[in-house]
Amino acid sequence: MRIIKFIPIKSAFLVILFITISCGEKTEVVNESQSDSQHPSLILTKKGVEEIRAQLGTVPLFDSSLAETKKIVDAEIELGIDVPVPKDYSGGYTHQVHKKNFLILQKAGVLYQILDDEKYAKYVKDMLMQYEEMYKTLPLHPKTRSYARGKLFWQCLNDANWLVYVSQAYDCVYNYLSEEERNKLETNLFRPFADHISIDSPQFYQRVHNHSTWGNAAVGMIGLVMGDEELIDRALYGIKDLKLDTKEKDDDGGFLNKDGKAGFLANIEEPFSPDGYYNEGPYYQRYAMYPFLIFAEALHNVKPALKIFEYKEGVLLKSINALLNLSDADGEFFPLNDGQKGMSYYTSALVTAVDISYHFGTQDPGLLTIAAEQNKVLLDDSGLAVAIGVKNGKAKPFEKKSINLSDGPEGKQGGVAILRNEDIELVFKYAAQGSSHGHYDKLSYSLYEKGDEVIQDYGLARFVNIEQKGGGNYLKENKTWAKQTIAHNTVTQNETSHFNGKYDIGSQHHSILNYFSFENENVQVASAKESNAYPGTAMLRTMAIIKDEDFEKPYLLDIMKVTSNKVNKYDFPYYFLGQVLQTNFEYKTPKTLNTLGSENGYQHLYLEGTAKAASENSKLSWLNEGKFYTLTSLTNNNDELLFTRIGANDPEFNLRREAAFMLRRKDTKNTLFVSTIEAHGSYSPVTESAVNSKSSIKELKLVLDTADYTAIEITNINGNTKLFITANINASKEAKHILTINNKNYTWVGSYYYE
Amino acid sequence: MRIIKFIPIKSAFLVILFITISCGEKTEVVNESQSDSQHPSLILTKKGVEEIRAQLGTVPLFDSSLAETKKIVDAEIELGIDVPVPKDYSGGYTHQVHKKNFLILQKAGVLYQILDDEKYAKYVKDMLMQYEEMYKTLPLHPKTRSYARGKLFWQCLNDANWLVYVSQAYDCVYNYLSEEERNKLETNLFRPFADHISIDSPQFYQRVHNHSTWGNAAVGMIGLVMGDEELIDRALYGIKDLKLDTKEKDDDGGFLNKDGKAGFLANIEEPFSPDGYYNEGPYYQRYAMYPFLIFAEALHNVKPALKIFEYKEGVLLKSINALLNLSDADGEFFPLNDGQKGMSYYTSALVTAVDISYHFGTQDPGLLTIAAEQNKVLLDDSGLAVAIGVKNGKAKPFEKKSINLSDGPEGKQGGVAILRNEDIELVFKYAAQGSSHGHYDKLSYSLYEKGDEVIQDYGLARFVNIEQKGGGNYLKENKTWAKQTIAHNTVTQNETSHFNGKYDIGSQHHSILNYFSFENENVQVASAKESNAYPGTAMLRTMAIIKDEDFEKPYLLDIMKVTSNKVNKYDFPYYFLGQVLQTNFEYKTPKTLNTLGSENGYQHLYLEGTAKAASENSKLSWLNEGKFYTLTSLTNNNDELLFTRIGANDPEFNLRREAAFMLRRKDTKNTLFVSTIEAHGSYSPVTESAVNSKSSIKELKLVLDTADYTAIEITNINGNTKLFITANINASKEAKHILTINNKNYTWVGSYYYE
Repeated sequence: MRIIKFIPIKSAFLVILFITISCGEKTEVVNESQSDSQHPSLILTKKGVEEIRAQLGTVPLFDSSLAETKKIVDAEIELGIDVPVPKDYSGGYTHQVHKKNFLILQKAGVLYQILDDEKYAKYVKDMLMQYEEMYKTLPLHPKTRSYARGKLFWQCLNDANWLVYVSQAYDCVYNYLSEEERNKLETNLFRPFADHISIDSPQFYQRVHNHSTWGNAAVGMIGLVMGDEELIDRALYGIKDLKLDTKEKDDDGGFLNKDGKAGFLANIEEPFSPDGYYNEGPYYQRYAMYPFLIFAEALHNVKPALKIFEYKEGVLLKSINALLNLSDADGEFFPLNDGQKGMSYYTSALVTAVDISYHFGTQDPGLLTIAAEQNKVLLDDSGLAVAIGVKNGKAKPFEKKSINLSDGPEGKQGGVAILRNEDIELVFKYAAQGSSHGHYDKLSYSLYEKGDEVIQDYGLARFVNIEQKGGGNYLKENKTWAKQTIAHNTVTQNETSHFNGKYDIGSQHHSILNYFSFENENVQVASAKESNAYPGTAMLRTMAIIKDEDFEKPYLLDIMKVTSNKVNKYDFPYYFLGQVLQTNFEYKTPKTLNTLGSENGYQHLYLEGTAKAASENSKLSWLNEGKFYTLTSLTNNNDELLFTRIGANDPEFNLRREAAFMLRRKDTKNTLFVSTIEAHGSYSPVTESAVNSKSSIKELKLVLDTADYTAIEITNINGNTKLFITANINASKEAKHILTINNKNYTWVGSYYYE
Repeated sequence: MRIIKFIPIKSAFLVILFITISCGEKTEVVNESQSDSQHPSLILTKKGVEEIRAQLGTVPLFDSSLAETKKIVDAEIELGIDVPVPKDYSGGYTHQVHKKNFLILQKAGVLYQILDDEKYAKYVKDMLMQYEEMYKTLPLHPKTRSYARGKLFWQCLNDANWLVYVSQAYDCVYNYLSEEERNKLETNLFRPFADHISIDSPQFYQRVHNHSTWGNAAVGMIGLVMGDEELIDRALYGIKDLKLDTKEKDDDGGFLNKDGKAGFLANIEEPFSPDGYYNEGPYYQRYAMYPFLIFAEALHNVKPALKIFEYKEGVLLKSINALLNLSDADGEFFPLNDGQKGMSYYTSALVTAVDISYHFGTQDPGLLTIAAEQNKVLLDDSGLAVAIGVKNGKAKPFEKKSINLSDGPEGKQGGVAILRNEDIELVFKYAAQGSSHGHYDKLSYSLYEKGDEVIQDYGLARFVNIEQKGGGNYLKENKTWAKQTIAHNTVTQNETSHFNGKYDIGSQHHSILNYFSFENENVQVASAKESNAYPGTAMLRTMAIIKDEDFEKPYLLDIMKVTSNKVNKYDFPYYFLGQVLQTNFEYKTPKTLNTLGSENGYQHLYLEGTAKAASENSKLSWLNEGKFYTLTSLTNNNDELLFTRIGANDPEFNLRREAAFMLRRKDTKNTLFVSTIEAHGSYSPVTESAVNSKSSIKELKLVLDTADYTAIEITNINGNTKLFITANINASKEAKHILTINNKNYTWVGSYYYE
């Protein structure tokens, strides 16, 4: 299946390529002797090490990070070396040991350089020799589940992790080793290791995918240490002259290589939008961040001519800012697409990201606050710079504001908008499919208050690294539930998922921004359209976070306008968390619980309650984490109101038993879902005092809905009425609007009107 | 229904009674003029105020508490006085305003004394006059749900709250008011107020119950301020010559007055055991604590001859220590009986308790740590003493150890044992019924790790003060679910609750301590018997928290021995929290969820999974709050293993959708439920690393079970075996035992053997 084919490379890179190749060829012998003096050069540099040694004992955050690292490594040295024959999946013994080993090797290498204590070099050498001894005898890993099996680990991905870290260790002890030792390691371990995860595993390596990024970085970093230009080229541009079948798919249903692109530069080019949004979402960006940045730092040090941090208008550094903004008040990443909840910018990959962003970027003092909270810095130049910044009191709060991040290589494939006001954060997703980790959730959203989920996105169905749960890998419910549209806070039409849940269709399309407007601090709005999820049906969703003097906290106004060429059934869920307090409608609860449907995620929902909407505003209030919330939704008396709970057809208890309230509208062509969600008040079980536990909205009213405009009146309990008009079509900042509603004229310039 | 009858009073009190009465009679006129100079005398004293004023600005914790109080009161004064006509239930507007008013009045009174600023006195006077104006016209509160309706509030209880606080305010401004003003207030407001909640509401006042304690304190405190000995007597001894029907019950199903006891002293005598355990449990003790202690402090100040803090061997101060020990690692009270989760020793009633305990007790430096965490002290002598202690660095950690607290007035009605080792806490309840707030949960337990619930007690079915949920009052599910035996971690026989769920039967009985043993730090054991819950069936439960070198953390060994005169069906649930990870048995999950039964709580359980025990050890592991747990249970192949979930027949979503694993053993007479629960390892979504995620137990084995002894072998994964033998009958510390098991002789002295 190896297709030899010419791969066109942009001319700018060709130049670099030729330079590096010619360097590699011409100076090979000279390099041999030079290379001795050139190590460390990858992440630590000779000059950097000198500076670090000079500062030791004077920069608290650096010193404590160093002491912590020393403590960990010393304890491991004490325990002795363990290089077991590979056997287990993630979470199993051999997996965990090899994972620990590469982390410790990297640390030990750094300690050798900084502390100049040979015991660390010896430890690295001894362990590497054990790996060398074992590796040359290793067959493929015995576990067969992966699309690309590694040798140390069940999947190449983990092997690549190993090499990214171990390259750094090797660089640090390079001069400590004899040439003979180096030859032994390079010949029997590093080179075949790099070949296995690349040439022998093209389905893993030759792609635009976070897995491949690890592979590219691994091959490139060991190449940089070894001065092996062939490996460096393979890292930057992919396996030469190899083209994969463009229709083959991986375990997750993603295309292996749809357009033939590969290599580190393509992996920067493709998944990052110009704003730095990574198409798979923040959880995977966080995972890919480390190889992106650590390899970039290495390239910056060893191949400065490549100007890697300026590549694609400096997108790598921009992406760090985007990623930090894709987190809630607690620093936890929004679980867009497949994302495990709880992952936050306190993870070690983000220490790398924050330090590198500070050092190679614009020394943003906000980053110092995050670094101080991380309470850890890299043990290199960038970490030193950060620690000195913190020491000198330069830290300022990292302020997250509303932000719109475009998706797609050129920023033209929709995006993600985050609307923020006070403690309220809304994440509105109108992006492209998000690669194989994407969910079928066009125009979906989640809502947060002070880091607590109000309306949740389910996230993924997986317990990462917990072996008991399917080896720590994706569970089948990830596909049958978590990816399906009904698992998300958006419209499901006729009980089918967007794009019929088909990845190859979904990945051809993306939603389109109508407008976003963050100028008025009190009214943050984003609006986007989706026309392909259901052929013949267009959805336009406009979401506003409004801070109004009549309300205690900012509230969400949500307008979803659906236009179709046929009659459909629409389901519109709200995945609220917490305890139902009150409704303004009578509902019935069944004696036995049945599933809501039989496929597309519906088979995982129990129906816990049913009602007919009784008034034009249906209200539901609930209590969660000591805070009150009220949903007010425009309804008509044919609307069904459903209470559902996740957990049906879940034979291994893989799903969380969480609730949703769902509005069901049958036999409808064009329609409008309009609702507000208020956060209000608080309850403490210590004082037992319930503050402001009721909605401040008396009435929500549709006053106009045309192709051009939708206008909603919000009347609060004191009778004050505000009007929100959104432009559905001509929504530019400059557009002038004149509109008459109920004999009153409204004139404004811009995307929306609110007063 | 007023029965005139002689109430026998113990002679010691008779003396005091006569003294106080004679004082009251003889010095009445003198008191009138003395009283001017004697105010404040209730909580603040003239001397105390002088000391406080002298220290102002020098004791940080006192100063910050004062500043906080001033800020609150100043803001309220700014808002103006609001004394609305009573209308609402708890959580409603008028309820909230009157509640806020009494809290502010008390604070304003204190501020007047400490800051000597007339604006506070004037505020108190003005508001009291508005209450006087309104109160004299008030009928009973319009809401009719209470067994004893108040006038300001829907229940007398809240009226009593009001008077306890307002008495203090009145004392503080007593001298500021003219005699005419005082007469007006006393005649139209305070005296009729005190009469309404006592003479006019004997069903509320004339009892041993936390409600009555509030009533007694309210009447007594206003009596102390007014120098009204009749009220003081009524407070201490109940309404004179009144005897209630001993068979009548209140809203909660509790007897109104079973044995004719009443008054503040009886309310100390009856509900507190000599160890200071309060029979209704910690949640209600916390609630009752304030009137107990604040009235005691007042009696100490005004009637020192009564020696209230020495009453019943100093039980009031002991009870504070008991209460503090009835909290988890986060200071949250164990929800024994009706108890709302989350209530903790950070509640203001516990500021009172801690300060008073420190000042009037033995100046335990551990209390200073809690006070510092509370970050607030009382604005009186005791608060000043605590704040000075903290300032002087006297605070030491408040260490909670294993403790056994007897129940019953004489400590002979069972009890509650709390077993602690490292982060593991077990609460084992073998107490009496616990008054009308008791649950039918003989020999039940809950298990905690570091303040997180591992095996939960459900607590109550109520959202205290949240008006939308049944007016903030007990929900019907409290009776149909929360009180039922199946809602608890103990044996349910034949799907009926203990004592058939009948309060009048349950309150005649209590469990009996077999033994407790805390001498060996590594093996904490408590064992107790219950013979009345199911006539003809005896249950003996022995629970041990064992710290063993082969295990990462202390684990629970649980041995429940059931002996019956007939064949029964036994259900034995484990209310675990979190996500199922793994079982060692195959289970089936039904397509639709049906209820497990039709009454006694079973109607609230859905059946989510069923299995037949496949081996002698059935294992279930789960993950909760980043920690792993494994249950290993001795089973036979007739045992059914059920997964259940709370929430059936819950038409208003009043119950939390939480799970249980349940062992069902049918057609069995005598039997034994033996299990271990291990806490092990950890999982972090930030590092995504699963540490020690598996059980360390290879086998749990019953090696002997006789009337006298039960012996269990625990073999860990490395093959190390330990033996635990519990003495079922002759279990004293001094008992000598000789026993042969499998041809090996075991000889020991004491309640159990472990090696």
